[in-house]
Amino acid sequence: MKSKRRQVLAIASTGAPQAREDELAVEEPLEIRVDTRSVSVTMRTPGHDEELAAGFLVTEGIVRKPRDIAEIKPYSRNNQANVVDVFLNDSARVDFSRLTRHVFMSSSCGLCGKASIEAVHQHFAPVRRRMRVERATLWRIARELQKRQETFAKTGGLHAAAVFTARGKMVVLREDVGRHNAVDKVIGHGLLKGGFPFDEHVLLVSGRASFEIMQKALAARIPIVAAVSAPSSLAMEFAEASGQTLVGFLREGRMNIYAGKSRLK
Amino acid sequence: MKSKRRQVLAIASTGAPQAREDELAVEEPLEIRVDTRSVSVTMRTPGHDEELAAGFLVTEGIVRKPRDIAEIKPYSRNNQANVVDVFLNDSARVDFSRLTRHVFMSSSCGLCGKASIEAVHQHFAPVRRRMRVERATLWRIARELQKRQETFAKTGGLHAAAVFTARGKMVVLREDVGRHNAVDKVIGHGLLKGGFPFDEHVLLVSGRASFEIMQKALAARIPIVAAVSAPSSLAMEFAEASGQTLVGFLREGRMNIYAGKSRLK
Repeated sequence: MKSKRRQVLAIASTGAPQAREDELAVEEPLEIRVDTRSVSVTMRTPGHDEELAAGFLVTEGIVRKPRDIAEIKPYSRNNQANVVDVFLNDSARVDFSRLTRHVFMSSSCGLCGKASIEAVHQHFAPVRRRMRVERATLWRIARELQKRQETFAKTGGLHAAAVFTARGKMVVLREDVGRHNAVDKVIGHGLLKGGFPFDEHVLLVSGRASFEIMQKALAARIPIVAAVSAPSSLAMEFAEASGQTLVGFLREGRMNIYAGKSRLK
Repeated sequence: MKSKRRQVLAIASTGAPQAREDELAVEEPLEIRVDTRSVSVTMRTPGHDEELAAGFLVTEGIVRKPRDIAEIKPYSRNNQANVVDVFLNDSARVDFSRLTRHVFMSSSCGLCGKASIEAVHQHFAPVRRRMRVERATLWRIARELQKRQETFAKTGGLHAAAVFTARGKMVVLREDVGRHNAVDKVIGHGLLKGGFPFDEHVLLVSGRASFEIMQKALAARIPIVAAVSAPSSLAMEFAEASGQTLVGFLREGRMNIYAGKSRLK
C-alpha cells in the first residue's frame, strides 16, 4: 500500500473550508536484520521491502552478488510486517561496524568531501564502462518517468528512481518517501530479479542528486546518473572522481552535463 | 559558503552545447562530537554548524535547555573545519545508545508507525499550547520564505526551514541540502541565540513534511508545522497524536489542514 486516503480540511482564500478526502503517501518504519541482527531502521513506503533490504546491503558494501544472499523474507510476528530478515551465505563478509553513519569518515586527513569520496572508493572502484546514450533518449526516459509516477501524481509525496538500458528501455521503477530508499529498491530489484550489476544502464531520479545517490549508483556499477533537479557540489565531485556521467536539470528540451560528457552522443 | 560556481555543459534540443558556469549547492560532511566522542556524521551545507549541532542534540533528546551546553566550537586540525565539538554540562544526560538510527524502535509491539510515535512521546510530551494564527498570515510567510530562499534560487538544490511568530514575524531561516539539517539549524539557533523553546511559533518548511520533521518540531515544542508540499501519512498521524497543527500544500490562496485545525482562524 503506497498511499492512503484521509479526511482533510481544504481551505481556499475565497469560500468556506471544505472537508474532503486526500491521498497521502504512506510512511512506515522498516527494520532490516542481517543474520537476526538488527542493522538499520529506516522510514520507507511499504512494498518491495526485500528489494529495499537487498539494495541497502549492496550499497553498504555487504552484498556483492546475488549468491551472497541465502534467504530474504519478512519477519512476521503478531502480524507486524515491518521487519525484513536477510540471511547471508559465507561468501558475504559482514563488517557490522561499517553499517553505521560513520562509514564515510576518514581519520587520516580530517573530514571533507574528498575524504568521503576516497572512503567510498576503498569499497567501490570507479567505473570505466564506455557505453553511450543519446540525448534524445534521456529526454524520452524523463517523460516516461513522469508519466509512470502514479503514486506521486496522487499524493505529491513520493520520490521515484528508475533504471533504464542505454536504449531507454525501463528495467524497473520504484517510488518511496525516501529518495535513497527508492534507489536502494531499484538496485535490490536488479540483485534479486536479475540484471545486477547495472553496468550498462542509466539511473534516473525524480529529484536532486546528492553524494549518497551517486555513491549508491557506484555500488551498483551504474555509469550514468540523471536527475530531474539539481546536483550538489559533492555529487558532481563524486561523479568526476568515480568516472560517472552526471546529468542534472533533465527536463523537456534541456539538460546540464556535470561530469562524464563523453558518454552522451 | 552555501554555493559554488562550476563549469558545466548546457545542452538544449536545438543549438550546440554550451560551456557555462552553474551555481551548485555545497554539500560537505560534518562530524558532531559530544564530549570528544563522535556521535554523528551528516552531509550538510556548510555554515551555522554550531546551530546544526545544537539543534541535532535537542531533537535527539540529549539537550533540553541552553545551559545544558557548556561550550560548542569547531574542532580545527590542519584547517579542516568539518568537525564540531560540543561539551555538555552535568545537567544534560547523554545516553549514547540513543544516538543511533534505532531510537524509534519498540520491541514491545513490533515495529509500526504507532510504536514509532509512542517511542518519541517517551522523550517529548505532546504540545498543548492554544496559540492561534490567521490563515492570511500563513500565506504571507509562505511568500516570504520563497522570496528569501536566496541560495535555492541560484542552485535549485537547497531545502529551507524557517521559524515565525504567530503574527508572522520571521525569527530565523536556514537553507541546507538536507531538509532535516535545515530544521536542526533553526532549532539550534533558538537554543544558542535565544527564543527556545519555540512554543508559540510556526515552523515552515519548503518541501514535504515527514515523520522526522514533525518529531524535530515536537522536540522544540513547536505547535504548528506548515509545509509547502505534501505530508506523509505518518506525519499526519504524528501530528494528531502529538497535539500539533499540520498544514500542507501551503501555496498562494490554498492550503490543506491535516491536523489541529483549532489553531487556525
